[in-house]
Amino acid sequence: MSDGQVRVTFQPHGRAVFVLKGTKILEAASRCGLTIETPCGGLGTCGKCRVRLSRGACEPTAAERETLPAELLDAGWRLACQATVCQETVIDVPDSSLFAGRPQIVTDADTDDAEVLPAVRKVHVTLAEPSLEDDTPDLLRLQEATGAVKVDLDLLRGLGGRLRASGFAGTAVLSDHHLLDFEPGDTTSECCGVAFDVGTTTVVGSLIDLCTGREIAVETSMNPQVRFGDDVLSRIQHGSTPAGLEELRSAVAEAIDAMIGQLCEQAGLGRDRVYEITLSGNTTMQHLLCGIDPSQLGQVPFVPAFGRSLVIRGVHLGLSAHPGAAAVVFPVIGGFVGGDTVAGILSTRLTELGGPALMVDIGTNGEIVLASDGRLWAASTAAGPAFEGARISCGMRATDGAIEKVVFDDDVRASVIGGAEPIGLCGSALVDATAELLRSGIVTPAGRMLAGDDLPDELSEAIRRRVIVADDDQPAFVLADGNGNAPAVRVTQKDIRELQLATGAMRAGMVLLLRRAGLDVDDLQHVLIAGGFGSFIRRSNAQRIGLLPGGIDHRKILYVGNTSLSGAKWALASTRARLRADDLARKAQHVELSRDANFQMEFAEAMIFPAK
Amino acid sequence: MSDGQVRVTFQPHGRAVFVLKGTKILEAASRCGLTIETPCGGLGTCGKCRVRLSRGACEPTAAERETLPAELLDAGWRLACQATVCQETVIDVPDSSLFAGRPQIVTDADTDDAEVLPAVRKVHVTLAEPSLEDDTPDLLRLQEATGAVKVDLDLLRGLGGRLRASGFAGTAVLSDHHLLDFEPGDTTSECCGVAFDVGTTTVVGSLIDLCTGREIAVETSMNPQVRFGDDVLSRIQHGSTPAGLEELRSAVAEAIDAMIGQLCEQAGLGRDRVYEITLSGNTTMQHLLCGIDPSQLGQVPFVPAFGRSLVIRGVHLGLSAHPGAAAVVFPVIGGFVGGDTVAGILSTRLTELGGPALMVDIGTNGEIVLASDGRLWAASTAAGPAFEGARISCGMRATDGAIEKVVFDDDVRASVIGGAEPIGLCGSALVDATAELLRSGIVTPAGRMLAGDDLPDELSEAIRRRVIVADDDQPAFVLADGNGNAPAVRVTQKDIRELQLATGAMRAGMVLLLRRAGLDVDDLQHVLIAGGFGSFIRRSNAQRIGLLPGGIDHRKILYVGNTSLSGAKWALASTRARLRADDLARKAQHVELSRDANFQMEFAEAMIFPAK
Repeated sequence: MSDGQVRVTFQPHGRAVFVLKGTKILEAASRCGLTIETPCGGLGTCGKCRVRLSRGACEPTAAERETLPAELLDAGWRLACQATVCQETVIDVPDSSLFAGRPQIVTDADTDDAEVLPAVRKVHVTLAEPSLEDDTPDLLRLQEATGAVKVDLDLLRGLGGRLRASGFAGTAVLSDHHLLDFEPGDTTSECCGVAFDVGTTTVVGSLIDLCTGREIAVETSMNPQVRFGDDVLSRIQHGSTPAGLEELRSAVAEAIDAMIGQLCEQAGLGRDRVYEITLSGNTTMQHLLCGIDPSQLGQVPFVPAFGRSLVIRGVHLGLSAHPGAAAVVFPVIGGFVGGDTVAGILSTRLTELGGPALMVDIGTNGEIVLASDGRLWAASTAAGPAFEGARISCGMRATDGAIEKVVFDDDVRASVIGGAEPIGLCGSALVDATAELLRSGIVTPAGRMLAGDDLPDELSEAIRRRVIVADDDQPAFVLADGNGNAPAVRVTQKDIRELQLATGAMRAGMVLLLRRAGLDVDDLQHVLIAGGFGSFIRRSNAQRIGLLPGGIDHRKILYVGNTSLSGAKWALASTRARLRADDLARKAQHVELSRDANFQMEFAEAMIFPAK
Repeated sequence: MSDGQVRVTFQPHGRAVFVLKGTKILEAASRCGLTIETPCGGLGTCGKCRVRLSRGACEPTAAERETLPAELLDAGWRLACQATVCQETVIDVPDSSLFAGRPQIVTDADTDDAEVLPAVRKVHVTLAEPSLEDDTPDLLRLQEATGAVKVDLDLLRGLGGRLRASGFAGTAVLSDHHLLDFEPGDTTSECCGVAFDVGTTTVVGSLIDLCTGREIAVETSMNPQVRFGDDVLSRIQHGSTPAGLEELRSAVAEAIDAMIGQLCEQAGLGRDRVYEITLSGNTTMQHLLCGIDPSQLGQVPFVPAFGRSLVIRGVHLGLSAHPGAAAVVFPVIGGFVGGDTVAGILSTRLTELGGPALMVDIGTNGEIVLASDGRLWAASTAAGPAFEGARISCGMRATDGAIEKVVFDDDVRASVIGGAEPIGLCGSALVDATAELLRSGIVTPAGRMLAGDDLPDELSEAIRRRVIVADDDQPAFVLADGNGNAPAVRVTQKDIRELQLATGAMRAGMVLLLRRAGLDVDDLQHVLIAGGFGSFIRRSNAQRIGLLPGGIDHRKILYVGNTSLSGAKWALASTRARLRADDLARKAQHVELSRDANFQMEFAEAMIFPAK
């Protein structure tokens, strides 16, 4: 995984997540869908949130030393609200520390508590050898022993020889009722699949043991299509000619194929032990990896080429795994509500949480899904690239040198990815900074940044000094001064306006979906934050700027991580999940926000930050 | 079709068959599975067998002039027991002329009275065009209108463009729930398939209109594999090396592929209008056309590679039709009881005729199937090539110059294919001659040919003069004297021995199957003669030499023709028939005669011709 992140695994749930060093265990657990009790409000005084580190260590804080007896501390017990993650860690969570009465949500954690019902299964068989008394045909003999129905001609051509070479004992590989292979010896324990989240920027692959459903290896890679454009719209444009489409298709296929190789190498397995592949991504990514002309996705009414999931031979997508391996491409809901969203609805069990539930994936293209009373509404908003750090004066992606967190006290406290001098700020820091600027009164709810005499009196001098007037005669707020090596990092008036646009679009979408369902914000029982960006924002700050609905208990707001990957993993491990994905996609009502007469009005209203 | 044969079609049944010129209509009808009433025993006196020639003509015989009024004769009415086929003929058969109470058997006639339920169907659709109100994905829009589920990637890639080019109206082609194509315009009437009987010697292909189940065109071709050997055993040997197998595979694939082209040309259709192919042949032929190593079929215990039917992409077999066309290969019962036999059981409805029914396919490899009380037994016998004219001193195939029919009266009457001087005799004439030699007492039931003083007294002088002593000091019977241009044609003592072996093997097989079923010959309600050779033997003569069970009313013995092709055609026209074929193959008990302790004894006994 990328820089500065470490893996945290929670037991006995078997869920794992990658977080930045310094992340509180409480936060990491939340990102795994585990809500830990914090009756004292996270002050470290009640001791209810105690967990035990079974691998990895971190120094106890003063609060922990006060609250927990020394022998517990020595045994690795810590307070989830206080302790932070410093290295790869495995944490035991006693049931007594879990927030009672809430369904624990499946996230991008390992899914070994989910049902394991893969399409691919292996059966080791020892067949009776043919004799004058029993001249059953070779294939039929194997079919009767395994329940296989279909077989490919290539396999059939070699089957007689293989059966005789192995003395009629070996391992049949089946995908549903399709006989994929007959392998000599007992290979039942070597049965894998690969699940992919194919993002616009990043591709993540997970090698799954199909016997257990457990993750064996993970790889992350840049989507090499970025050289043809950062966002989906530029990809659609580039892919609208046959040559451009082929460039995009082969670029991502080669990247995915290379990742299959890397995953297998990590696990010490041959590629021919990968018998199935699942692929989840936004509608455009799924079109491109299938080599389907995306041009209709770039023009009204944004019609996808396919809706239901596709089952394609991996080789036809340019992926080398077992030659018979199928690639399952997720169903899509609309031109901008794709397989990644379906995978999210699936893996979070959004429709089964009890009570109205909202899932948001915050990014350049924001997806919003509302589940209520067995129904589903899904929409997308073009929030713009502000959350990715683009079009922000000092914006950057969440990599080394980016300020990723901002807290105001007497002055500004900023934490920088990689720990070095800051060279810019990423989306989560922009949200933090804006929330703090609103709290401190430097920015008004209308989004105007005050300066000079207009500034509130109660500001500390340190903070007040950070408000300057920039070259454009507009106020700006200095997060870091810069020096010889590093530039100054600022939040400008224009940055605030960009954030207002992005936030307003998301918020207007939520409001309109709630209205479709006849619900109020207060009715929401669950708000799930999916996707890469969402994992790094602070819930309270997102609520403060109106990106998430205010007035909701923060325990109802959960980070669910890369649900596109979780869904792909689940679909790999369970055919039932796969059917469910198609069912959810079919059931979801696609709400085209731009067609809603109220959208522009709601959008304008939603651009105003909440009063407090 | 081959030399001297003409097509006869019976209406309203829509059944057609090719017969030699001079064949009686009664016989032709029998080969189509239609049994016509002949209470007078075929003397032309009762007039019950009247039929009407609606196309084609033949001069009335004296008996017909006596029995039928002139106005009926002028209107084309003839007696089926008297009139012969001289040219392409269409014959109306009134119900009153059909033998009552007998199910009319489906044969290699057209099957337009059979159910038409093809896997492939076309649906012309006019879809609503996408709009802001309806952004249903392209494929889903088509799926919802047609019930299609699966689609190939190649088609999906071009689908959006095709839908838009055709204004969202066109014809969807489906095979079961698989979308094969979307064609512009309404092409529902152009929907074909090809059924093939792939014989060791001959390949027959039939182009079928899948809308109606009717045959549009027929092609016959030599199986080019004959250059690697005449019989299945030499093919198995040649195909036991990878290079030899590829030679055999490509030879037959190219022949079949060329026939698809010829059939389409005959019908004025493009190859892309052929959406499905069915292939029926003996087990070895089916292995070779699939490119499957046949070597196990050449060694004990003769195990086939596959049992159930196979569904393979036509392109994978080297056949060019519609790119999505599937090829369905018939299920097999055993190493020498193949898809052609299953097709025969299917197309004759052998298990549904009521009462025990026997089907025999007489040839180098003879197949015997017995159906009784819902059960099926199937066996094969290596009868040897005598029926094909091989290993017979003057033997030849049934082509120009072959004596094909022999009748003794005061002298020998022989009819020759093509009408020229005879140069040999084919299997049917050998059966005729032997039966007549038995009747006249020249050959004893033990198979000894008498000569000189041992000959019966009552022989005519002309017949007696034909018995000579040949160079091997054994008697021989001269069928034709020969002259400067043509050789003498004889039946030798050795020829009789060869026929005894061939007949004995078939008969012993029938006896053993009947014993398995606990039946006597007298219990048989139906005896069906399938296959190319069988169509040309006289029932009474086959009974006389013991090749068919004696003592059975000849009306219970029916010619059913090329049932391998009929079954292939039926399977093309009906998915239900296809399922039934698998069911029949599964149900059939494969009796390995050589394993039966009684076979050698029965064989020896069966070599003795019936006493009379």
